[in-house]
Amino acid sequence: MTARILDGRAVSAAMLERVRREVAEFVDAYDRTPTLVTVLVGDDPASHTYVRMKANRCAKVGMDSRRVELDATISTETLVSRLRELSADAGVDGILLQHPVPDHIDERAAFEAIDPSKDVDGVTRTSFATMAFDEGGFRSATPGGIMALLNAYEVPLAGKHAVVVGRSPILGKPVGMLLLARDATVTYCHSRTADLADRLAEADVVVAAVGRPEMIRGDWIKPGAVVVDAGYADNTGDVEYAAAAEKASFITPVPGGVGPMTIATLLAQTVGAARDHEATR
Amino acid sequence: MTARILDGRAVSAAMLERVRREVAEFVDAYDRTPTLVTVLVGDDPASHTYVRMKANRCAKVGMDSRRVELDATISTETLVSRLRELSADAGVDGILLQHPVPDHIDERAAFEAIDPSKDVDGVTRTSFATMAFDEGGFRSATPGGIMALLNAYEVPLAGKHAVVVGRSPILGKPVGMLLLARDATVTYCHSRTADLADRLAEADVVVAAVGRPEMIRGDWIKPGAVVVDAGYADNTGDVEYAAAAEKASFITPVPGGVGPMTIATLLAQTVGAARDHEATR
Repeated sequence: MTARILDGRAVSAAMLERVRREVAEFVDAYDRTPTLVTVLVGDDPASHTYVRMKANRCAKVGMDSRRVELDATISTETLVSRLRELSADAGVDGILLQHPVPDHIDERAAFEAIDPSKDVDGVTRTSFATMAFDEGGFRSATPGGIMALLNAYEVPLAGKHAVVVGRSPILGKPVGMLLLARDATVTYCHSRTADLADRLAEADVVVAAVGRPEMIRGDWIKPGAVVVDAGYADNTGDVEYAAAAEKASFITPVPGGVGPMTIATLLAQTVGAARDHEATR
Repeated sequence: MTARILDGRAVSAAMLERVRREVAEFVDAYDRTPTLVTVLVGDDPASHTYVRMKANRCAKVGMDSRRVELDATISTETLVSRLRELSADAGVDGILLQHPVPDHIDERAAFEAIDPSKDVDGVTRTSFATMAFDEGGFRSATPGGIMALLNAYEVPLAGKHAVVVGRSPILGKPVGMLLLARDATVTYCHSRTADLADRLAEADVVVAAVGRPEMIRGDWIKPGAVVVDAGYADNTGDVEYAAAAEKASFITPVPGGVGPMTIATLLAQTVGAARDHEATR
């Protein structure tokens, strides 16, 4: 068997086309353009690239974007106060704080300075809990993108055993909660898991969210499993792709799987935020 | 093998004695008494009993308690505004909204009207996320009590496989997140789990949090597992006790296991809240 590709490029293109139409309708209705602000602290080259990509995608769907670039040496307090200003600014619909921030900054304090109504990247405590409690609200962008990709291929989840490898606050933990909300049995594995191969042998759905190239071996995958690889380091995913693709029923390529879905989810949530802001004005 | 008892009565008694000393120290230091407000909507007899028990325990440790009793027919809006008043009242340290509320009330809206600094029962989105992100803050009372009980017996959790049966927002979901923070591999099972017996056969730690008497059979328990039964209906737990006790290394009785730990955790968090309030005045 060779797995069918979960084609994030194709699915995200359709999603961005829908966002483009929604932006046009929004501009018609409210005579203003939805606006995403990206906040970048320091000068990590990869982060610069990600922020630039997001700005380009905004432009393509007709959305405005603003870049706020801050010196690597700023304090948590300064960052928090900038994020609060943006949260209070009626011209801003969505705020994205590019991850990671420099070590000396309290990232959680910064995230919590983002008003939940503008948290289109789904990083606040409020967004996490609304995901966990299946209450709507914004999703962390990558987990939301993964769910949209699985939906696009009508991958069944109810009653299936999903194993999430990784437990970060904006990727592993929320994607597990979203899978649980779809009635999957969900197992969280991580660096301290004693018997990862045994856990994966039982997984109908694997979500790899670690960021360690090829740490998940292809022969650990259960025949017919669905493999979602959200890891990305040195242009390689967390899963040994070729070997896994021999066993899986569906698999995401890296790149071209989860990555494009993340940006599409971010932009879809930004236009959603803009509509919510108009509805509550 | 017969399991060792995880004796919630004994552990909670020691915890309450510690709370009693902390309350006395607090009164000495600040010349006021920590105060818990319980809010009860409607006249469910079991809820009345629980609220009375909590008030009695407050009295025993020297804490004040106030009971707010509201008619079963009140609206969500009225309940929310009462909870907001209590949240703003400097004489109130902790607020507990007795669960369940009548069906017509939006329980989530009510929970969110409790200020996180007074959420000593750990029901708000903020408390859930701080548990999930291992950031401190208040724990849901039963999950917090379960962790305190496991700690008291020095049950090892890192690298162990913990299976949580149940996924409610104030019990199953948070206890799984607390176990994950202690480096357990965590599996969430629930009503849609296809193969519960198979999942439990691999569990080093089982937390049963369903409320369906004896739905977990004793012969499903792995030899040597630690069994925590947080279910309670008709004076019976979720686990077939006698058969499970033959196989487990540790087990909670019902009653006398998790139940007393819940109240002790609630009161410990209330005196903690009172100290926090004084520290930030």
